[in-house]
Amino acid sequence: MQLLKDRIRKDGKIKSGNVLKVDSFLNHQMDIKLFEEIGKEFKRRFEGEEINKILTIEASGIGIACIVAQYFDVPVVFAKKTKTKNIAGDVYTTKVESFTHGKVYDIIVSKEFLGPGDKVLLIDDFLANGKALEGLAALVKDSGAHLVGAGIVIEKGFQTGGERLRAEGIRVESLAIVDGMDEEKGTIWFREDE
Amino acid sequence: MQLLKDRIRKDGKIKSGNVLKVDSFLNHQMDIKLFEEIGKEFKRRFEGEEINKILTIEASGIGIACIVAQYFDVPVVFAKKTKTKNIAGDVYTTKVESFTHGKVYDIIVSKEFLGPGDKVLLIDDFLANGKALEGLAALVKDSGAHLVGAGIVIEKGFQTGGERLRAEGIRVESLAIVDGMDEEKGTIWFREDE
Repeated sequence: MQLLKDRIRKDGKIKSGNVLKVDSFLNHQMDIKLFEEIGKEFKRRFEGEEINKILTIEASGIGIACIVAQYFDVPVVFAKKTKTKNIAGDVYTTKVESFTHGKVYDIIVSKEFLGPGDKVLLIDDFLANGKALEGLAALVKDSGAHLVGAGIVIEKGFQTGGERLRAEGIRVESLAIVDGMDEEKGTIWFREDE
Repeated sequence: MQLLKDRIRKDGKIKSGNVLKVDSFLNHQMDIKLFEEIGKEFKRRFEGEEINKILTIEASGIGIACIVAQYFDVPVVFAKKTKTKNIAGDVYTTKVESFTHGKVYDIIVSKEFLGPGDKVLLIDDFLANGKALEGLAALVKDSGAHLVGAGIVIEKGFQTGGERLRAEGIRVESLAIVDGMDEEKGTIWFREDE
């Protein structure tokens, strides 16, 4: 998605450790007009697929998922992160390892809001090592719902998550795949759109 | 807002301890069509006010804020919750006490995304004791931005937050004010719209 790549080049900041900061438009301050274009593009890529629910994970996936949902005309469910040992009530749960924060946390979704018959599109802002997306996919599987695919705004193509998830048979559509970054020169290489 | 009150009566669940669960449409599963109506209503109530930014707090405020932002044609910034002692970088920060979770946490907003010249509308799903909203208002004040007001989806009128914030001179617009609930009978009393 050229508009997105241009925006990342313009406003993204490359930090040491292969960190790409896009918090001026994607995940702290949020450019809703850009989110609308993202929604249109996901709708185009998943055209013809039957989808009745979008699943995302708090916090930075929620805003994007809600705008994207308008183009699919479906509700959004967000998985909650929790460090609570005792999960109350009837929930699906799985563990997710966060490299950013160096922690393992549980993610949960109430059984009321996901189940057999649901046709689910996952939405998230970033895909790097793929642990969060893998956790969401595990919740969908546990629930008996059908996983249609995943829509990702920015994929770090030099990390292993995308490759692994696609090898598992999950359809992953990333709007911008970063294949490399040079912190000193401030340059970013994107994979060509197919 | 009658549509919202009807929805709360239909799908809200009253739990012991004056807990109102609305997670089937507001803050776990999210009904985006309802959020659109909420956006229109906030736009109507704040008509004529100059607003260039919406500020909310993770996680459950984000989805509502993003849909509402479409009607104001502005970006959204969400305050992040953190328990990290050492806040990195240039941020505004304040402490918020959570009664639900029995903890004190820091909320932060990057100085890049809030400052003098900003005219800010706060958006959140719930107002009860008002600590979260008070924290957001403190960040706005610290930044030198102008606080236009706060748009709340559900206010618990029998808790003190709304009254206190209004007494401080903050314009708080709540779309449904719950004045009481009866767990056994499953009934909810709403304040009349003005």
